[in-house]
Amino acid sequence: MYINRVSHYLPSEIVGNDYFTELNNLSSEWIVERTGISERRKAPAGENTNTMAIEAVKTLLETIPYSKNEIDLIVGATYTPYDTIVSLAHAVQHYIEIPDIPVVSVSSACSSLLNAIELVEGYFAMKKASKALVIVADHNTAYYNERDTISGHLWGDGASALLISKERQTDSDLYIRKLITGGAATSGKAIEAVVLRPNERGVIMPYGRDVFQNACTYMPKVSQQVLQACGLTISDIDYLIPHQANHRISLNVIGTLGIPEEKLLSNIQRLGNTGCAGCAIALSENFDRFEKGQRIVVTVFGGGYSYGAMLIEA
Amino acid sequence: MYINRVSHYLPSEIVGNDYFTELNNLSSEWIVERTGISERRKAPAGENTNTMAIEAVKTLLETIPYSKNEIDLIVGATYTPYDTIVSLAHAVQHYIEIPDIPVVSVSSACSSLLNAIELVEGYFAMKKASKALVIVADHNTAYYNERDTISGHLWGDGASALLISKERQTDSDLYIRKLITGGAATSGKAIEAVVLRPNERGVIMPYGRDVFQNACTYMPKVSQQVLQACGLTISDIDYLIPHQANHRISLNVIGTLGIPEEKLLSNIQRLGNTGCAGCAIALSENFDRFEKGQRIVVTVFGGGYSYGAMLIEA
Repeated sequence: MYINRVSHYLPSEIVGNDYFTELNNLSSEWIVERTGISERRKAPAGENTNTMAIEAVKTLLETIPYSKNEIDLIVGATYTPYDTIVSLAHAVQHYIEIPDIPVVSVSSACSSLLNAIELVEGYFAMKKASKALVIVADHNTAYYNERDTISGHLWGDGASALLISKERQTDSDLYIRKLITGGAATSGKAIEAVVLRPNERGVIMPYGRDVFQNACTYMPKVSQQVLQACGLTISDIDYLIPHQANHRISLNVIGTLGIPEEKLLSNIQRLGNTGCAGCAIALSENFDRFEKGQRIVVTVFGGGYSYGAMLIEA
Repeated sequence: MYINRVSHYLPSEIVGNDYFTELNNLSSEWIVERTGISERRKAPAGENTNTMAIEAVKTLLETIPYSKNEIDLIVGATYTPYDTIVSLAHAVQHYIEIPDIPVVSVSSACSSLLNAIELVEGYFAMKKASKALVIVADHNTAYYNERDTISGHLWGDGASALLISKERQTDSDLYIRKLITGGAATSGKAIEAVVLRPNERGVIMPYGRDVFQNACTYMPKVSQQVLQACGLTISDIDYLIPHQANHRISLNVIGTLGIPEEKLLSNIQRLGNTGCAGCAIALSENFDRFEKGQRIVVTVFGGGYSYGAMLIEA
């Protein structure tokens, strides 16, 4: 299957580290050293997961290479829902006005982008769809505690939309050669390390160290698995896009894999942890950079735990 | 694909209509006349979507016809999450201790059972799985307003678990012959008729009439579609299990389809609207009733809107 287009949407409000210096007495140097984050975006009142998803889709439709009415599947992903009944996928279906196609939203926390794309792969395999719209959005600031000195400064808001087709549509399509996902809820403190229980409180990360260690274990491991499945090695890839959770995790992952830093694509410095949207936003930001034949690995890890990797060829 | 086993879990606390008579001055006769509901279950403190899901799985594993370690996919569904990061599917993976298999949770509101099973169908088609555990659970009372005289008395809590395999496993397997799902977010007041915005308030149903009308339109329509796709007609089916939202909707659906009331399977009288778990609980309650060769249609409708139907053969 092929990624035809990727777009993204970011709220305009930029929150610098100085905000958390004033609020929580955390210096910008301390935040940068531990996370790599200098600033992040925050959705203003009136914006939410669903509106951000629609904004990303608006941008996507500006350059869609076929009629939007050919879209025959919509998959949304978020762990920060505005509405758990009218999910972002339903809000998008309402916006693009295509009735009677399968519409579903998924969540495996920060790894949901790849779960959503794997679901599309399934619909293509069943021959129940051939052109899918995938939307990933997280509105972390709707659920975060900005006074939480452990994780309050990590989170950013953002959305991304992808058009994925079974057959090649354009010369610039990115070919998805292999995709693997897995749950790892049996590992470490998976079911308590990072949680978002809407009826209790927002997102908290009581065991950040366990998240860090498992992220640094699973992302390299599953990246190697997708490459091995294709008879390739690390030296065959041109870029790595890991889940944008913490720049130190990203550096640890490329260190383990033996990938030089110039092959690492990141946006966490500017956007913070934008949840399951992070890697898709990075794909969108770098779409025009990829040259024919280049290979990109996208790898994700999320609370719960869950993980995945996808090998793309330009 | 085949349903090998179905189980369900219901919290022990029974809430009768008299509770809402005292609270909201609604007579039991009034509630029964408008909804068909006499009582519903309520999860006590300490229980939630994830614990109910695990309880349903415990029961399922008592009669699993193969090693539980053969399960290679877990799909959860709920619109009333206890934790949006550690979803019910992840909680179940942790409980059954099977690492490194795909694990994902979905939501299309009350229609999620069929979206979850369609996702399984996709994994089977991709050959990425062959034995799936599906868990549907809704903890409506965690998000309802019991003083809401429009919908407070409708909701109940419950969970169900299903084992689904690509190939037949036992003589009592139910064969899933055809499954169709669709989003209908373009219809009526789809994106505002029934909503659950965790950061604003719980589940509310400002346009119940619109929900009623669309449920009564889409469930008969998609039921006819699955039958037509198999060259069958209404007279070929032995039972209908519609989404358990309101007994008047169920009677309207069988009236439209021309199905006699003795072919309608319901639990709403005893359980209220248990969300996406309702039809699966009905399958579990009636599993032993089905005789070789009998055909059952399960049809669902959910807020957002979304719909689906599945033809099963015993």
